Amino acid sequence: MERIFERLEKVRMVSPLVHHITNYVTVSNCASITKYFGGSPVMADAKEEVADMVNLASSLVLNIGTLNNMQIESMKIAGIAANKKGIPVILDVCGAGATKYRTQMCKELLETFKVSVIKGNFSEIATIAGLNVQTKGVDSGKVAADKCELAKTLAANIKAVVVITGAEDVISDGTNTYSVKNGVPVMGAIVGTGCMASSVIGTFCAVEKDYALAAASALVCYEIAAENAEKTSDGSGTFIGSLFDKILMLSEISVNKMKRISKI
Amino acid sequence: MERIFERLEKVRMVSPLVHHITNYVTVSNCASITKYFGGSPVMADAKEEVADMVNLASSLVLNIGTLNNMQIESMKIAGIAANKKGIPVILDVCGAGATKYRTQMCKELLETFKVSVIKGNFSEIATIAGLNVQTKGVDSGKVAADKCELAKTLAANIKAVVVITGAEDVISDGTNTYSVKNGVPVMGAIVGTGCMASSVIGTFCAVEKDYALAAASALVCYEIAAENAEKTSDGSGTFIGSLFDKILMLSEISVNKMKRISKI
Amino acid sequence: MERIFERLEKVRMVSPLVHHITNYVTVSNCASITKYFGGSPVMADAKEEVADMVNLASSLVLNIGTLNNMQIESMKIAGIAANKKGIPVILDVCGAGATKYRTQMCKELLETFKVSVIKGNFSEIATIAGLNVQTKGVDSGKVAADKCELAKTLAANIKAVVVITGAEDVISDGTNTYSVKNGVPVMGAIVGTGCMASSVIGTFCAVEKDYALAAASALVCYEIAAENAEKTSDGSGTFIGSLFDKILMLSEISVNKMKRISKI
Repeated sequence: MERIFERLEKVRMVSPLVHHITNYVTVSNCASITKYFGGSPVMADAKEEVADMVNLASSLVLNIGTLNNMQIESMKIAGIAANKKGIPVILDVCGAGATKYRTQMCKELLETFKVSVIKGNFSEIATIAGLNVQTKGVDSGKVAADKCELAKTLAANIKAVVVITGAEDVISDGTNTYSVKNGVPVMGAIVGTGCMASSVIGTFCAVEKDYALAAASALVCYEIAAENAEKTSDGSGTFIGSLFDKILMLSEISVNKMKRISKI
Repeated sequence: MERIFERLEKVRMVSPLVHHITNYVTVSNCASITKYFGGSPVMADAKEEVADMVNLASSLVLNIGTLNNMQIESMKIAGIAANKKGIPVILDVCGAGATKYRTQMCKELLETFKVSVIKGNFSEIATIAGLNVQTKGVDSGKVAADKCELAKTLAANIKAVVVITGAEDVISDGTNTYSVKNGVPVMGAIVGTGCMASSVIGTFCAVEKDYALAAASALVCYEIAAENAEKTSDGSGTFIGSLFDKILMLSEISVNKMKRISKI
Repeated sequence: MERIFERLEKVRMVSPLVHHITNYVTVSNCASITKYFGGSPVMADAKEEVADMVNLASSLVLNIGTLNNMQIESMKIAGIAANKKGIPVILDVCGAGATKYRTQMCKELLETFKVSVIKGNFSEIATIAGLNVQTKGVDSGKVAADKCELAKTLAANIKAVVVITGAEDVISDGTNTYSVKNGVPVMGAIVGTGCMASSVIGTFCAVEKDYALAAASALVCYEIAAENAEKTSDGSGTFIGSLFDKILMLSEISVNKMKRISKI
């Protein structure tokens, strides 16, 4: 647990290339946050080049926020190339459950290549696990089931790290399960905080082979920066700018003092 | 007229899902402003899922800013689904008149499904009405004709609410016509303020069946927030962030005191 | 050299329409910076309308950041239309060399129509010139060759202005070569500063037929605004907002005092 800041330092030192195939709504902030954390973002989704781009990259982040058939085809090619190269694939199942198409395409992606980390809010992950929940757009639904149990079970089933985000994040690889309680409520009121979380996870997974620990470390750092941003930003309209600044200022002292992570 | 703040309160309470098929230039700010007003934005444009997404939504916002044939096909499917479900459809005819293709696609959309609110600047709306004016890109042209007359006539012809934005906004359903004089000139100097206006209109129409009143109320609230943002922002570069903050702070007192709306 | 501010004044007076076919990552900031400089941005990429849009425009900016076959087809149509009309075409070879596809598409574009200004960082431009360098994503590679020599040679070969950006920018039309040393290191740490540079070059080329001087003037003004923004912004997270403000405030005195341009 003490090694969280070490991982951030490694990201800053290595500056891994993080290839994204993502939605056109939050893509700019996803690129920015990757760069503020020390990674080198690249966004490219033409099927003619994604395999080549993966060959330059240290991790691949896929986000289905504004999916379409062409993008899904490119995701498959990129995912297969990432598997062949042995770099981690992060899949943000943004809006899974909202439409049959979205749920079906997630299934196809998971059948086509091996995902290292699958990330969503409770209702999205429950959809992937085959539970019958209601996803309202891309916002989080609520069901009575247990977050931790869901993460563990799905992780064991699909042999991938499962990240369920929320006020408390749960990260599990089926064996080890972490709870992260950093972050601030305003993040839920701002467009793109979920997509950015996946970019940060992808950036950390590029330098740390224990993907559950990498994802948990990523969320701790991201959410501590968000806590610091909330203290200084004038309001939520300028929150993301403040967040970017606070990411640059993350230090070993602040991360160690503020981290709220536990093994469960 | 006194009910403007009530409508904002209803948006905040209901948090309607507002489905957008929109351009990739201002999409991020459109999603954000919908959320700051209290709505729940979703952006999705694959033809395979737009009908399903409409079935979850309370209103549909279409914006042709970066249109292409695939997107137009999705807009048609979504528009038909919205008509069937009985939810309002807002069409922002962004750049109509600039190219033959843009004008023709607007015509096709209007022939394929019923639009509840059509919104543009003077030259864009005049184009839709069949007047011969010059649209310079997506910026507003100027002709001598009468804004109010144009809005009324087109509204009666196409049986939809017509919104003509500008220093003075005119909103008409053919019977009732409103003038809104809130807002600040800096809005005209910032990319995306027009597109965001359509998102706000879509958010208000989701909770108020009188679409002319809904659109007028939306513009009053949006533009009062803009007035407040101008007072506190350091410059136009940070205006949108300030605008988002001021939207959250809109109160019954400020809206009632500052509103500049009249029936004409 | 003393005429740099004159060109900015002309942009502000004429407000040229600058048509972009660009990537979906930085498109919003490209539109904004064009507008802050006084231009009128339009973003449109459907093959059915790009020729019509070019006919309204005073310059065309092409950026291959998130290219695909459909976009390349539209770029070709737009480029041919721009040649026919006689307006300048700026090509940002963003990420050239990163993938075979990207390099090949640049080649096809350059064979299909005449480019007025080609812009990239060292490794991207070296790729275009046929040198064997390594492009890491869209970030700059480093080789021992001489920037100035590369710009001159390529400019003479392809009969276009070549702009190589970096801490020192080199601009050459084969005969005249300029060095611009304005700017601040933080620009390299922020997503989109390269793409925005191309938009500014496109805006200045719209009003100045000497494209090498136009490009150099554009970079001087852009980078002086960046220097001023760095002095007042709280951190890099709010840098772009500050940059936009400082662009509006560029004056003859500040430009003349701060410009670091020389003929080499």
